[in-house]
Amino acid sequence: MLEVGEGVTTLEVGDHVIPLYTPECRQCEYCLSGKTNLCQAIRVTQGKGLMPDGTTRFSMLDGTPIYHYMGCSTFANHTVVPEIALAKVRKDAPFDKICYIGCGVTTGIGAVINTAKVEIGARCVVFGLGGIGLNVIQGLRMAGADQIVGVDLNDDKEKMSRYFGLTDFVNPTKVDGDLVEHLVELTGGGADYTFDATGNTTVMRQALEAAHKGWGESVIIGVAAAGAEISTRPFQLVTGRVWRGTAFGGAKGRTDVPQIVDWYMGGKIEIDPMITHKLTLDEINHGFDLMHEGKSIRAVVEF
Amino acid sequence: MLEVGEGVTTLEVGDHVIPLYTPECRQCEYCLSGKTNLCQAIRVTQGKGLMPDGTTRFSMLDGTPIYHYMGCSTFANHTVVPEIALAKVRKDAPFDKICYIGCGVTTGIGAVINTAKVEIGARCVVFGLGGIGLNVIQGLRMAGADQIVGVDLNDDKEKMSRYFGLTDFVNPTKVDGDLVEHLVELTGGGADYTFDATGNTTVMRQALEAAHKGWGESVIIGVAAAGAEISTRPFQLVTGRVWRGTAFGGAKGRTDVPQIVDWYMGGKIEIDPMITHKLTLDEINHGFDLMHEGKSIRAVVEF
Ligand SMILES: NC(=O)c1ccc[n+]([C@@H]2O[C@H](COP(=O)([O-])OP(=O)(O)OC[C@H]3O[C@@H](n4cnc5c(N)ncnc54)[C@H](O)[C@@H]3O)[C@@H](O)[C@H]2O)c1
Ligand SMILES: NC(=O)c1ccc[n+]([C@@H]2O[C@H](COP(=O)([O-])OP(=O)(O)OC[C@H]3O[C@@H](n4cnc5c(N)ncnc54)[C@H](O)[C@@H]3O)[C@@H](O)[C@H]2O)c1
Ligand SMILES: [Zn+2]
Ligand SMILES: [Zn+2]
Repeated sequence: MLEVGEGVTTLEVGDHVIPLYTPECRQCEYCLSGKTNLCQAIRVTQGKGLMPDGTTRFSMLDGTPIYHYMGCSTFANHTVVPEIALAKVRKDAPFDKICYIGCGVTTGIGAVINTAKVEIGARCVVFGLGGIGLNVIQGLRMAGADQIVGVDLNDDKEKMSRYFGLTDFVNPTKVDGDLVEHLVELTGGGADYTFDATGNTTVMRQALEAAHKGWGESVIIGVAAAGAEISTRPFQLVTGRVWRGTAFGGAKGRTDVPQIVDWYMGGKIEIDPMITHKLTLDEINHGFDLMHEGKSIRAVVEF
Repeated sequence: MLEVGEGVTTLEVGDHVIPLYTPECRQCEYCLSGKTNLCQAIRVTQGKGLMPDGTTRFSMLDGTPIYHYMGCSTFANHTVVPEIALAKVRKDAPFDKICYIGCGVTTGIGAVINTAKVEIGARCVVFGLGGIGLNVIQGLRMAGADQIVGVDLNDDKEKMSRYFGLTDFVNPTKVDGDLVEHLVELTGGGADYTFDATGNTTVMRQALEAAHKGWGESVIIGVAAAGAEISTRPFQLVTGRVWRGTAFGGAKGRTDVPQIVDWYMGGKIEIDPMITHKLTLDEINHGFDLMHEGKSIRAVVEF
């Protein structure tokens, strides 16, 4: 924190903070429901790229206003963020690692512990072993899952996934016959919990149908292409499967993010191996290339 | 019970029983999971219309075997049923009313209390106000719901639905604009719980999308036409809605059906007004006509 605005009571200059694209006001109907992390306090202005007072705080570029991206604009070296969208964290935690807790780490681990509420001994399948999927895996290991199956088109993802707790790797292009049937067999009747971390709607359906009859739950984490729809036969649900989704892992940012930072500092979770690249700001477009080519898990931009 | 087979230990001649199309063996992986009522003990033979020993117990008709329908064959005046598919009930309860607990009553009430686990004060929408939907409504009243909206194409369904606890009736053909938007507005942001009791996959989607952002849960009860699929944008789930289904209201027949009979006998629930017709066996096809025409809720066939 370099500066603190008028009326801010919970933060002061010098605090270490992680910006939150899902804020936590602790006062709106959503925050008070106890059932969701989707605080709506500043949804309308955030959706328009504006601060809660309806202004943008970046300087114009050639007369064109620059807006706030997802309420955070974390590619700027200085940014303005509402108080309710900042999680205060301990000062001894390294920024170049814990920045990842602002999205991927919390989303993956949170999907397991807040959304699915996986219990000890569960059998699970994770689709997509990228920056989110790996954190689902380490969440499952923390939760005490007995079996953690990972599904990815890219064989290069197996090694690090095993490091984080994967028990079985499946490349769909190398399965004889139907992927869902294969997974149902591999998990002894279907998984207790499955997770989509690909964003592909065909995969989302496979994830649901690979869940165990009677009680299997499937959690959509991936963000699909605009307009894409998921489908299944309703019989899949009538016979007991449950279809859910999660945003930011169901985590309440100001409450849960500092705790995840503590887990990292205490060695309960790992982040360092997932930060495969460090870049300077002028190399940022190379970072997007690495991501699209499946060569990085996460690249951190240092200022 | 007219006769009891060898090895039967929990029933005796003279007992009053309700046959169960979903049995309860209390020993299979499903029964022991504590998470589902979908006992699998006799699934394979029941699916083929056979008793667990692989035989049919009805006499042949002109050389053609007669099979057991859904393991019960309740249109026969005498039938053979496995021990695990019979719920023993109190002898003072009238058969011509409690027969309905063998499907519709338990399915509707169970969807509320076992599957959705509706809590006091909830706002709910029920799609389809027939023999199942009315029981969802009385389940919701028992559970203490604050708002019970009913949606049906047939205005004639409003009156009895109000008797059972409906607070708002909506005929989709009389809504200006979009039905989902109308329901979201009527429930102050979306319903905490919605139920499909129509079997129509378009309605199932409306039911999901009328659920509250962040926490609304939608339960599919209706059985869709063969091959029909449900669809939605995954964003509906990522923003917190949950899609479930239920079979026999999640009820374990031998355990829960006798309790529902007690609720009926104690006046906690009502059944009599829903039995709109009584027929003799030779009038049974008239019963199907009444149902298709939307003129009956339930017609009971007396032998
Ligand atoms: N719900 C949320 O709050 C939230 C938060 C962050 C990210 N996300 C979404 O999560 C998804 C994953 O993000 P990420 O950063 O891990 O992406 P990523 O690109 O690092 O990883 C995606 C992985 O999925 C694999 N994959 C792609 N198609 C596949 C298929 N058909 N079958 C199997 N595997 C396949 C890829 O090989 C890759 O390893 C994205 O859609 C992202 O938008 C959602
Ligand atoms: N899951 C289970 O275990 C289970 C058990 C029993 C019955 N069911 C299913 O439940 C469904 C309802 O059974 P029921 O006995 O109540 O049927 P019903 O015919 O008595 O009632 C259906 C109601 O839905 C209304 N309806 C039809 N299309 C509609 C639409 N597009 N919009 C609004 N309302 C509409 C009808 O007017 C009618 O009132 C059926 O599909 C049945 O197969 C499921
Ligand atoms: Zn809030
Ligand atoms: Zn069983």
